[in-house]
Amino acid sequence: MSPDESAVHLGDVSASEFRRAMHRVADLTADYLEQVHAYRVVPRVSPGDVTKLLPGSPPEEPESLDRILDDYKRIIEPNTTHWNHPGFMAYFGITGSGPGILGEALAAGLNVNAMLWRTGPAATELEELTCDWLRQLVGLPPAFRGHINDTASMSSLLALATARQRVGAADIRQRGLAGRPDVPPLTVYASEHTHSSIDKAMIALGLGLEQLRRVQADDGFRLDPAALAEAIAADRAAGRRPIAVVATVGTTSTTSVDPVRPIAEICRREKLWLHVDAAYAGSAAVCPELRELMVGWEAADSIVVNPHKWLFVPVDCSVLFLRDIETLRAAFSVVPEYLRTSEHEATNLMDYGVQLGRRFRALKLWMVLRAFGQRGLQERIRYHCGLARRFAALVQGEPGWEVCAPVPFSTVCFRAVPELPLEEQNRFNERLLAEVNARGPVFVSHTKLRERYVLRVAIGNLRTSMSHVAQAWELLRAVRARLAAEW
Amino acid sequence: MSPDESAVHLGDVSASEFRRAMHRVADLTADYLEQVHAYRVVPRVSPGDVTKLLPGSPPEEPESLDRILDDYKRIIEPNTTHWNHPGFMAYFGITGSGPGILGEALAAGLNVNAMLWRTGPAATELEELTCDWLRQLVGLPPAFRGHINDTASMSSLLALATARQRVGAADIRQRGLAGRPDVPPLTVYASEHTHSSIDKAMIALGLGLEQLRRVQADDGFRLDPAALAEAIAADRAAGRRPIAVVATVGTTSTTSVDPVRPIAEICRREKLWLHVDAAYAGSAAVCPELRELMVGWEAADSIVVNPHKWLFVPVDCSVLFLRDIETLRAAFSVVPEYLRTSEHEATNLMDYGVQLGRRFRALKLWMVLRAFGQRGLQERIRYHCGLARRFAALVQGEPGWEVCAPVPFSTVCFRAVPELPLEEQNRFNERLLAEVNARGPVFVSHTKLRERYVLRVAIGNLRTSMSHVAQAWELLRAVRARLAAEW
Repeated sequence: MSPDESAVHLGDVSASEFRRAMHRVADLTADYLEQVHAYRVVPRVSPGDVTKLLPGSPPEEPESLDRILDDYKRIIEPNTTHWNHPGFMAYFGITGSGPGILGEALAAGLNVNAMLWRTGPAATELEELTCDWLRQLVGLPPAFRGHINDTASMSSLLALATARQRVGAADIRQRGLAGRPDVPPLTVYASEHTHSSIDKAMIALGLGLEQLRRVQADDGFRLDPAALAEAIAADRAAGRRPIAVVATVGTTSTTSVDPVRPIAEICRREKLWLHVDAAYAGSAAVCPELRELMVGWEAADSIVVNPHKWLFVPVDCSVLFLRDIETLRAAFSVVPEYLRTSEHEATNLMDYGVQLGRRFRALKLWMVLRAFGQRGLQERIRYHCGLARRFAALVQGEPGWEVCAPVPFSTVCFRAVPELPLEEQNRFNERLLAEVNARGPVFVSHTKLRERYVLRVAIGNLRTSMSHVAQAWELLRAVRARLAAEW
Repeated sequence: MSPDESAVHLGDVSASEFRRAMHRVADLTADYLEQVHAYRVVPRVSPGDVTKLLPGSPPEEPESLDRILDDYKRIIEPNTTHWNHPGFMAYFGITGSGPGILGEALAAGLNVNAMLWRTGPAATELEELTCDWLRQLVGLPPAFRGHINDTASMSSLLALATARQRVGAADIRQRGLAGRPDVPPLTVYASEHTHSSIDKAMIALGLGLEQLRRVQADDGFRLDPAALAEAIAADRAAGRRPIAVVATVGTTSTTSVDPVRPIAEICRREKLWLHVDAAYAGSAAVCPELRELMVGWEAADSIVVNPHKWLFVPVDCSVLFLRDIETLRAAFSVVPEYLRTSEHEATNLMDYGVQLGRRFRALKLWMVLRAFGQRGLQERIRYHCGLARRFAALVQGEPGWEVCAPVPFSTVCFRAVPELPLEEQNRFNERLLAEVNARGPVFVSHTKLRERYVLRVAIGNLRTSMSHVAQAWELLRAVRARLAAEW
């Protein structure tokens, strides 16, 4: 394999071919957003079906972009679960909005890796700027600085790693946790409704699932501060070392809001790191009238808000706000020779976490915040909350159904209550969910609350309107009636 | 804030507005790729300059997409370091290729979160399929299964977390590392040239930087197996517990290749996890004649290959191959009630790592592998290797310069050797680098090898041809001559 002196420049696909294909992608995407409502939300497909449609080996020879895009349209798009569908009301409804899609496409063309300021000046500074815009929009004090991660899973992991590093003399970054008589088990506190990402952070950080205290919640699914204080005291008495509390603003099951102010007071007293998981509901703070639900979060050490959840930014984009972002850098900065630069005064984003490589995620966030503006974001979040309240009112107004949790935001937990023993009720609702989802126009998910199998309708897609919510309700009623007749 | 019964549906930006803007983005991106060579690689900008061009607060009212795109073109694009520039030869040269850009744009429109099979059937199955295509392309045995992460930093973290979990009776996932007399310090071995992501994994996983043994390298910057065996024995004798070795195929400084076969033999004998970091050079294995450099990697427990490095996929896309992927699931799977589904036989990608949320990264990988085909990928990698060899030959042919490391792939380490003491030589090369980069048409980086400040030219962009390499060389010679005259 000697160098071929006569080699022509091989390069990328041809410029004209790319331009033509990119215009086709523009139409494919615009068509998709206009017509996505015509799809079933969840495709009628079984595991392995997509694989069967594709060759088991890569092609030896290049294929044309048109052929690849034909296959995309024929095989990929129809076999997707359509998160951008107005009937998507499962988990948390999200939106890859038009402005965000533009931002992703442009970022892919630039292909910036903003690990260092010098490798991405605009990307680095736009990240700092848009995080500060978001901070202002949700009403957090200027002390907080934001850092974009892919997901809340990583944001929360970094927050807890920083809390762990704050056990100062231990210098866990340098010396680790194992084989150290001077480091007792380090405990973290969260409500029983905390997201599974906190469990994963406990695993990854070597703290151990056992050291996550799932503190009991009150009737409203909110962490009970008295129970928290007791758990902390018990651990201290047993020789363990509490390091952090995770308060959730908008839990995944019910969107309940932990009482952040008394929790913050406990953290202050006990010198514990307070991490607020507001991945979903933090976006609601763009509406001043919803901020009262977050009161106390301004006393947190770290807060995660995911613009890819309820702020219409395509996945992935999670903002970790830290009151003292230098603590994150102290925990993670490692600068090898090949990454040293002379711009000492500049922010190098690689210093603030695990990942060296960093996509230009701020671009889509910037474009979304500008395209909707503060007013546009507020109106849409209010509209979603209004839809959820109207859905809850429909459920409450119908005999034999119940709303199972308060509705502070845009998610409703509810269930059918047929006159059956609880076990049978649960099977009934499970079957109800499966059959409603099998119909196609809506996709609803579930959770369990106090041994009850509960359905969840979560509004978060920009294309969802009252007609879709009403359709979901009519479908639920119809399937319930049929099920009741044959149960 | 009662629900507004008369609220119109607010929705996304209008369909026609989006379509028009997306076509404009198609042209912006196509124009960019056609004209990027006309930019300086690194913009002439200082920290804070971009921020000054942008308002400090988000807009209250919505702004038009055209206005936002105007600002993109005026403020963002010119102030970017152009990784897609043919003169980008710093760090590792990469490419956001045309087919990959199409894939990113389509993925943003779908906005799939493939956490569960049911939430992304096509995304989940395409990920499994394309990872297997890549496995075939690089010639790994079928036992390896791939899992896409954002970056090699995460891939390597997951690999070491899985190694940590294999310390079976300890059940570190459940019980953690702290306060356990039964768990000694856990040590990891890597060469002194290992990437900083391994340091960050040691921090994050609670193993501690001190427990990373940076084993001495040989004259060719390759980990010395004898020194490795000694280090392991010394740790065992001291009561520490070795858990894993990281072998690098293509180190960041010189692209040296650790001798994987004897390292694998040591790992087999010592029952240690072998992780192979082939983030950059793994892609070269698409060329059968380059696979001999990787011999032995098929005995690894885990291997990371980054298609976003040298396989023309836009950032981010890192594939972690595991010989027994179920060990990764055993380390990380946590399934809360709200994520339970009935598709027991399907792969749920969320089970294989820290992050719950998962973008549809396989789409761009699939499009790139198809658009170039096996032959196209091979030709381009051979072409890049050829360019590097030709550059090395130019350096070697010129008195007063030296190539500082072997050139197995597409990266050349070299330096000017003026007749000066070593300290002065280093300052000379540092200044040479700064002045060459300040000129604009090329961007070169550096490292340190045996106390020598060394320049690096790394070829990896599809737009780079011999003319750019020759231009870099002429620029280096010219600046060197000027510097020598005034030194």
